[in-house]
Amino acid sequence: MTSASDAARSYSREYGARFQQELFELLRIPSLSGDPARAGDVRRAAEWLAAHMRGLGLANVQVMETAGHPVVYGEWLGAGPQRPTLLVYGHYDVVPAELADGWRTDPFEPVVKDGRIYARGATDDKGQLFIHVKALEAYLQTSGAAPVNVKFLIEGEEEVSSPNLRPFIEANLELLKADVCVISDSSMRAIEEPAITHSLRGMTYIELEVQGPTDDLHSGFWGGATHNPALALVEILGKLYNPDHTIAVPGFYDDVVPLTPAERAMIAKNPLSEEQFKQATGVPATWGDANYTIRERVSARPTLDINGMWSGWSGPGPKTIIPARAGAKLSSRLVGNQNPHTIFQQLKRYIESITPPTVRVDVRLLTTGEPALIPFDLPEMQAAARAYELGWGHTPVFTRGGGSIPVVADFYNLMRIPVVMMGYGLDDDGLHAPNESYSIEMFQRGIETAIVYLEQLAQLPRQSRG
Amino acid sequence: MTSASDAARSYSREYGARFQQELFELLRIPSLSGDPARAGDVRRAAEWLAAHMRGLGLANVQVMETAGHPVVYGEWLGAGPQRPTLLVYGHYDVVPAELADGWRTDPFEPVVKDGRIYARGATDDKGQLFIHVKALEAYLQTSGAAPVNVKFLIEGEEEVSSPNLRPFIEANLELLKADVCVISDSSMRAIEEPAITHSLRGMTYIELEVQGPTDDLHSGFWGGATHNPALALVEILGKLYNPDHTIAVPGFYDDVVPLTPAERAMIAKNPLSEEQFKQATGVPATWGDANYTIRERVSARPTLDINGMWSGWSGPGPKTIIPARAGAKLSSRLVGNQNPHTIFQQLKRYIESITPPTVRVDVRLLTTGEPALIPFDLPEMQAAARAYELGWGHTPVFTRGGGSIPVVADFYNLMRIPVVMMGYGLDDDGLHAPNESYSIEMFQRGIETAIVYLEQLAQLPRQSRG
Repeated sequence: MTSASDAARSYSREYGARFQQELFELLRIPSLSGDPARAGDVRRAAEWLAAHMRGLGLANVQVMETAGHPVVYGEWLGAGPQRPTLLVYGHYDVVPAELADGWRTDPFEPVVKDGRIYARGATDDKGQLFIHVKALEAYLQTSGAAPVNVKFLIEGEEEVSSPNLRPFIEANLELLKADVCVISDSSMRAIEEPAITHSLRGMTYIELEVQGPTDDLHSGFWGGATHNPALALVEILGKLYNPDHTIAVPGFYDDVVPLTPAERAMIAKNPLSEEQFKQATGVPATWGDANYTIRERVSARPTLDINGMWSGWSGPGPKTIIPARAGAKLSSRLVGNQNPHTIFQQLKRYIESITPPTVRVDVRLLTTGEPALIPFDLPEMQAAARAYELGWGHTPVFTRGGGSIPVVADFYNLMRIPVVMMGYGLDDDGLHAPNESYSIEMFQRGIETAIVYLEQLAQLPRQSRG
Repeated sequence: MTSASDAARSYSREYGARFQQELFELLRIPSLSGDPARAGDVRRAAEWLAAHMRGLGLANVQVMETAGHPVVYGEWLGAGPQRPTLLVYGHYDVVPAELADGWRTDPFEPVVKDGRIYARGATDDKGQLFIHVKALEAYLQTSGAAPVNVKFLIEGEEEVSSPNLRPFIEANLELLKADVCVISDSSMRAIEEPAITHSLRGMTYIELEVQGPTDDLHSGFWGGATHNPALALVEILGKLYNPDHTIAVPGFYDDVVPLTPAERAMIAKNPLSEEQFKQATGVPATWGDANYTIRERVSARPTLDINGMWSGWSGPGPKTIIPARAGAKLSSRLVGNQNPHTIFQQLKRYIESITPPTVRVDVRLLTTGEPALIPFDLPEMQAAARAYELGWGHTPVFTRGGGSIPVVADFYNLMRIPVVMMGYGLDDDGLHAPNESYSIEMFQRGIETAIVYLEQLAQLPRQSRG
């Protein structure tokens, strides 16, 4: 380690409390990208980040318009053209959170308890993206320079599957030009077991609605001769699965690349036991395709989950109606080489084919994301492993992530650079759930690992980049 | 017809516009008995009715407490002990209504359009109960007396299945003592086809909730090995029905009294065609047990309907969670001699038996109501038929009602008096649905028929009462 990275790390420890307070300001902004009513808050989060970056001395900081929520761009190119350039990707938007969902405290008023920050976005992804901002600040404030050039691309639509990011990258290839991209938006099982994610699942997210009568009907007058739309939905959803918990949609598994024995052996290094699963989730028992281990099911196999379902009356007391409509949100996590649009067509065709003539059905595509698989023997990946060893204090494993970061495939395909997923979250941070939290220790170790990673990148042979 | 009833009928026509304005005052009170937050409004409706009755000269008018919402009682006993006493039952509470449900106008601000009054409760039951109040007023204002004694029992919990009415009747048998009970809370197919309902379905209304994980989970991290509670609910609900649309709960049909050929012939006099059903409801096709006609299915056979269903995210945009919980409200319409509590036990036992070990289930009883069947050859029933002929202008049919008025069985069993259901509603008034409405012409004809019914009752041989 150089004295520059040592100085930066000391600085990050010295000013850790201030870093947290700054993060709190960002966490207080309810930047819900999926809710049109929150568009103003989403923009406010972008403006806050841009102002913060300008304050740290980044150049060319811009809140850049897209067809949806804006992208925040900023750069520090002081390392010069002979040094590599790192592109940091993150997202400042969050998924919905309401007290009624089971939050113990206001999701948009950060609270520290037992060394953890409780707030929507604490780990996904405001806390994690902020690590890179603070790592750069630490170098600039101590040495006046970082070992490599750094560009930031922080978007506001990750939680709605980044519909406008791909066109944004295509339109700004020159501005974004870099040698490697780092993303911190994933997690490890325990602080002693850091992980570099080299594979992510893609997604096809649909919404379907069944319509029976024009309006809700009185169940006494019409019950017995009306196909209840909620029952019709139940029948349709039930037919999407086989008794062995596999997915019954014709063609669904056709493009899945089978796991090799070598891959299964690597996945087995990071096992997930029935007991661990129950402990972490609270379920009474696990479920799924018995031909695969639990870890394989949640990371290397495709899924189909009901994310939401609604029909008729769900308020207090009884209401004796036959609902006019019943709907569901369904999402399928995809693995290589499944194509999200092919899967949508298969789902739509199958659902329409099993819908009885007593109701009407409407199947809509909400979002898609490509699955991604990055080779883990690339030098930029190995540099990340060394950064964990030196900055975090533990040797990382390379894992497959079960979640989806749709942009990973986009960066990989459009910019032709390695994408290194250095997740600084913990598996049980509760992201997307009530009481999302982020460990202050993880936040601090993340900053120090990011500091070391910049140094490790600077030491890579320049010719390794095409 | 006597000159007294003629005079009363003329008065009701002369002051019809005022009667409507008075009804509007009652309709404006959102007396939602199922919503604890509306308890004050429910009481306000009771107070309004009591004040109105006092203004008309009724005696002993009281807002009487129960364990739930109050009962409004009032009497006019000026016909003397030699004349029969009619007990009028009605309810001043309503089911929920919100603009978001599809109302074209505020459900609690009555609007008249094309001869119909649009408001929650217009037909069910504020409009229909008011008919009897105005019939009595018409006699008192023209002759100073009515042909029979009249008592009113107007409750505020019918829409939550009258949990406190049975104890109220038991505690007030002397006060309520009468020779016949009339209820106007049912409907006819067309104005030319008035109907006297002599049978009603009972009800068992339950709520069930499936719990999987403790909190919502990220579908990317846990999807594939978690039994999605919404899917578990789908599987449970799907197993409640057989492929032929009958109900699969063991023992469910055991106590159903089979329809005789004579009963089926009577029901066939009032047919309901596929085309009529589709027209009235907007469904693309009818559904149900093919061994019974459509009319039989909706009135003389038991049902099981999903009244509501909820799980996870139903707001705008995608949210990639595995919901912690999924729930449903289910109600079964029962026929003689099914027992609502036996049916609840059967439902609960069966649902628990088919719930997989990967989730937990909770089955709760919300409300029950007994089915009722009144012989239609009783003199008080035949007097009602004559009242329709003379006051309404059309001969009525005796029909089975598919809905539930839980108190009918209570009046019949506890007070041992005939219960005559003279419905003044129309099948497509849209009760319990958005844009509930009531025809002004039906309202006027109802008042005149009620006027004639009092006269017909006065002419019954007194000894017909035990």
